[in-house]
Amino acid sequence: VRAAILVTGDEILRGRIQEQDAGILARSLDDRGLRVERVVMVGDDLDAIAGAVGAALAEGMDLVCVSGGLGPTHDDLTMEAVARATGRGLALDAGALALVRARRAALSVDPAVARLVEEKQATLPEGALVLPPPGTAPGCLLEHGGAVVVVLPGPPWELRTMWEEALGREPLAGALARASRPRERVLRIHATPESAVVGALRGVDPQALARVRMGICAREGELEVTARWSAGDEWAADALEAAIAATAGDALYSRDGTTVDEMVARGLMSAGQTVAMAESCTGGLLGARLTARPGSSAYVLGGVVSYADSVKTGVLGVPEEILRAHGAVSAECAEAMAAGARRLTGADWALSITGVAGPGGGTDEKPVGLVCVGLAGPDGVRSVRQRRGGDREEIRARSVATALHLLRRALAGAPAV
Amino acid sequence: VRAAILVTGDEILRGRIQEQDAGILARSLDDRGLRVERVVMVGDDLDAIAGAVGAALAEGMDLVCVSGGLGPTHDDLTMEAVARATGRGLALDAGALALVRARRAALSVDPAVARLVEEKQATLPEGALVLPPPGTAPGCLLEHGGAVVVVLPGPPWELRTMWEEALGREPLAGALARASRPRERVLRIHATPESAVVGALRGVDPQALARVRMGICAREGELEVTARWSAGDEWAADALEAAIAATAGDALYSRDGTTVDEMVARGLMSAGQTVAMAESCTGGLLGARLTARPGSSAYVLGGVVSYADSVKTGVLGVPEEILRAHGAVSAECAEAMAAGARRLTGADWALSITGVAGPGGGTDEKPVGLVCVGLAGPDGVRSVRQRRGGDREEIRARSVATALHLLRRALAGAPAV
Repeated sequence: VRAAILVTGDEILRGRIQEQDAGILARSLDDRGLRVERVVMVGDDLDAIAGAVGAALAEGMDLVCVSGGLGPTHDDLTMEAVARATGRGLALDAGALALVRARRAALSVDPAVARLVEEKQATLPEGALVLPPPGTAPGCLLEHGGAVVVVLPGPPWELRTMWEEALGREPLAGALARASRPRERVLRIHATPESAVVGALRGVDPQALARVRMGICAREGELEVTARWSAGDEWAADALEAAIAATAGDALYSRDGTTVDEMVARGLMSAGQTVAMAESCTGGLLGARLTARPGSSAYVLGGVVSYADSVKTGVLGVPEEILRAHGAVSAECAEAMAAGARRLTGADWALSITGVAGPGGGTDEKPVGLVCVGLAGPDGVRSVRQRRGGDREEIRARSVATALHLLRRALAGAPAV
Repeated sequence: VRAAILVTGDEILRGRIQEQDAGILARSLDDRGLRVERVVMVGDDLDAIAGAVGAALAEGMDLVCVSGGLGPTHDDLTMEAVARATGRGLALDAGALALVRARRAALSVDPAVARLVEEKQATLPEGALVLPPPGTAPGCLLEHGGAVVVVLPGPPWELRTMWEEALGREPLAGALARASRPRERVLRIHATPESAVVGALRGVDPQALARVRMGICAREGELEVTARWSAGDEWAADALEAAIAATAGDALYSRDGTTVDEMVARGLMSAGQTVAMAESCTGGLLGARLTARPGSSAYVLGGVVSYADSVKTGVLGVPEEILRAHGAVSAECAEAMAAGARRLTGADWALSITGVAGPGGGTDEKPVGLVCVGLAGPDGVRSVRQRRGGDREEIRARSVATALHLLRRALAGAPAV
């Protein structure tokens, strides 16, 4: 089952916002075994949107997902474009109008303006099924020559919410049911260069390599290796996994796609333990990532963002002597920060991060990219010191990943490195 | 000057990573006055990549930016695809090889594997100019029938770094120089529904509306209104801005595109003041956003993530009585958290956030989406209590935005709301 995703909006083509809709839809479709062949993004232009929808239908896509352009203003043109691409008229939908009015009741505006806005947002391609608005804009579902077109709002939370609801509705449910879940294995490898995988693959039976579609993605100091195969070829994926495992060793930390975030969460929950944070250069990014998961209050207590040295000493109790002798970016300081956060919060574990994220502030001795990550736990403190390339954003993101891996290893009973 | 962006990678089409490259390039091109007409994303497939590059060239794009697929593994096919689309052969480039070897010197792998990897990554379309690798993969620049093709690595920090470097090189610099910076005004409006803009526009001279290309983007409780016009038509943008200003009032906080993040940073720096954070449901997201800016150590001291109530009372000194009487999600608790963070860190200002981010944990009295944001400053404490729609991610992001606006208003001398 082939799918295309079309994202609309001048703000996307102008790079003014970080686009998220394509990834949300792609992930959901991929999980269900659909093949997303293409993502296209165009501006708020009737011809461009209608042209892109028409092109996807002409190519024989089974499913076309369109996001954005459902607002009340003149530059919201998606419903009109979809109507044109599918040879339909536009019509005010009474059901959609009632839904829009219910959502808008809270917003007090001039009644004449309210009517304009409501009627604009309740006008859909003829024959389309309305999808109720999580925000203020309804979406719709329609069938065209055997293909299904889904129209969804642009704001990511509205899109996520509406999409989940749409999954169970016809004709979308039927189109999804024709796909079969992929035979797939996802391996995750920490702190290993891509070239090591090249080396590992040299030893694999070429027959096996030919029978697996493999993808390798390097991000934030991790490699994600995905292998997909057809019925009867699982042996080939086994051969591939064995070769990679032999080369990567302990660095291959997940053979079923489980992320380090999930492993840390599960490890803490199953042990009934808690974690705290002490962050310097990441400024709260580790805490934000740990608490992004629903239910994380079961194991995250909190922590301290000690961006200034005065907070390191005054709140976390890092001895002035450590800062004087070793500086704030040092294994000693990272360990004292972690110990301080553990003491202060009473958590079983505390992770700390201190480093030079740049672009300024680097020295010969402490260059940009140098990061020390500490962990305090029931068995004492440990730390890792690393230096990697990257800009400020990358250095901060990698530091958080390093911290999560340090805790993952400790939870799995690995000795201090 | 027309541009297209092509992003490659199975991991993108499968939604496994949050794509960022298209936005980075789009923003940079838009700032320089190029018109990005389309973004296309395809998988690691030679035909698909070559086809998309060829289609963009056939449409007469002046610039085609391609990202991803420059790694050392078999699924990295971009150089081959670009060569095919531009009718060139592939050749090992001696300069590129030297650059790759210099970057790889630190990675110790089997010499035979190293040679394979190096030669793969140093093989470029014939006649292309090599762009030095910030990571391990070189990119390239080439001209084809008057158009410029730029090939860049997929990891966002490598792309950002290489792109900055490439901007000054021919033939890219020449193509960029042919564009002219747009006549543009960006208005930012806080906590105002899109329908209010619809109302404002009804009062505008239709002649003026016809002469401005306007875009409206709603995100995280903010509206961004962009107006572009041609030479001689600035009066029309003035009329539009005046109408929006009359409707939005104080909510129109920026008339030159300056973001709330920038206004807070400038306000603190010009006053020589500092800020601290006390975060509950956002878990560190506010601190991460404040410290995302280079140089933020001049005004961010740090703070406390008080996810558990024990940290609110034990570290921030929130009185148990407040938690008993009002609960953790209350204006009283938000104000006590902010006051505690200010006292603890000695900052001039402290922002706090406490709320129900969901999906669980909501009650009739304290539903999901209820958030209290506090600010402690030289003149005392204040807070706002709000309830908005959205899922966990949206609620957390909006809470951070609300906190930034609270501080922005206070720095501008606005009275407590």
